[in-house]
Amino acid sequence: MNIEHRKSSSIGVFDSGVGGLTVLKEIRRVMPHEDLIYLGDTARLPYGTKSPQSIARYACQAAARLREEDIKLLVIACNTASAVALEALQGQLAPLPVIGVVEPGATAAVAARPGAEHLVLATEATVRLGAYSAAITRRDEKASVRELACELLVSLAEEGWVDGSIATDILQRYLAQLAPHERAPDCVILGCTHFPLLRDAIAAVFDEGTAIVDSASTTAEVVRAMLERLKLGNEQHRTGAVRLLATDGASRFARVGGHFLGESLAASNIELVDL
Amino acid sequence: MNIEHRKSSSIGVFDSGVGGLTVLKEIRRVMPHEDLIYLGDTARLPYGTKSPQSIARYACQAAARLREEDIKLLVIACNTASAVALEALQGQLAPLPVIGVVEPGATAAVAARPGAEHLVLATEATVRLGAYSAAITRRDEKASVRELACELLVSLAEEGWVDGSIATDILQRYLAQLAPHERAPDCVILGCTHFPLLRDAIAAVFDEGTAIVDSASTTAEVVRAMLERLKLGNEQHRTGAVRLLATDGASRFARVGGHFLGESLAASNIELVDL
Repeated sequence: MNIEHRKSSSIGVFDSGVGGLTVLKEIRRVMPHEDLIYLGDTARLPYGTKSPQSIARYACQAAARLREEDIKLLVIACNTASAVALEALQGQLAPLPVIGVVEPGATAAVAARPGAEHLVLATEATVRLGAYSAAITRRDEKASVRELACELLVSLAEEGWVDGSIATDILQRYLAQLAPHERAPDCVILGCTHFPLLRDAIAAVFDEGTAIVDSASTTAEVVRAMLERLKLGNEQHRTGAVRLLATDGASRFARVGGHFLGESLAASNIELVDL
Repeated sequence: MNIEHRKSSSIGVFDSGVGGLTVLKEIRRVMPHEDLIYLGDTARLPYGTKSPQSIARYACQAAARLREEDIKLLVIACNTASAVALEALQGQLAPLPVIGVVEPGATAAVAARPGAEHLVLATEATVRLGAYSAAITRRDEKASVRELACELLVSLAEEGWVDGSIATDILQRYLAQLAPHERAPDCVILGCTHFPLLRDAIAAVFDEGTAIVDSASTTAEVVRAMLERLKLGNEQHRTGAVRLLATDGASRFARVGGHFLGESLAASNIELVDL
């Protein structure tokens, strides 16, 4: 593969479902000239309640499928898959660069509030692995990190019920599991790509001035910097194309995914693939 | 296989996850002398948001796995799989009897309120297929049926948040999607095996006197009658054994499944299998 060919290749983006479209949206905003190909493993979502072994197997199959599309870089736009399988995927795809969302999310949190108390809202599997705690304390030894599994927020975001009292009540009930001093963190990390949809509802249950951080924009910046360093950026005077692949349910993908991408999608634009 | 051998074989029970344990519990109550083997396809749950093609493929793989255990009858303890794949599974396993939960649920609803207005609460896939509407109107041409997808109730039951204002508010928000006259049905059918856990919360949002019907007990009665007719019932002066199989996450299966079975489970009692 020559270098020109690789410059014009697509950036691959993988998620368990539609949540990663929040990351795709940021990548497109930062690099509108790049072609993007997104794969949502909707046949096997959610990953957040599955075992590490299954998650790693699913992620490797998805990555293999995207490699067939001759991508130049892979983004794991799923916190759970990033927490479980980033190293395995880097090994599998080398020398292709693979970027997860946990490390950029940790970078963003530490930049927003150095030496702070962080609260990570995430899925059960992400919390169990403690990937955010490790990534944050590696960057900032004065930081403290508490992770909280908030599984219901995933379904809530998928249902599109992103504001109102139901979202607030669910959040308050999860927060009630914390010790009182843990309920007023300096920084809240949206450790699941579904949660940016609930940003306003989440911000409302914390003190004013609490930083609310998600990994989408930081991940897009990391991708841009990586492509620049590897001299793999595409021509800038063009508009990139976006392809959307899913392993199941094109009509649901289009309907729910539209919320996440912030624009309406047609089922006919979703390509179904088998893994 | 001789008849004695088949009498002592187990009853197989299949579900996408732990919800079908509500059906297993009823079968055990009605036939405590029978051996039961349960398979929860936790690696691929939930089925409720997946396409009919995927659901049918998963159900056939699970049924094939249970047939290896030399079962004498298979119960599809998942409304979505029953709605999508009952006929396919009956074809695949013939002459082994296969019983779904939709038909017994419809029988129970029609018996509870003849000629009535029924409201079915179910998953997206079950509603899309209209299996309850077909099964009820086939039994009672004067009945009318409205089906309502309530996806969030599945996560709510799995989280164990089965009472309190969050459950009520979520139900009210779903009911607000109905026309005013549809919000006061004569009979509410719990068309997902997760929903019996929410029975009290569901009953509370409807008029007093509304029948609340689930298919678990009727399904157990249909199984008992079928075994009797086929002379396949086991000896009654014994206590049956229960084996629990899952395709992923033994510890989560034990923790969440305990709510559904109504007794505590240990992860070490769950056998992990690959489909």
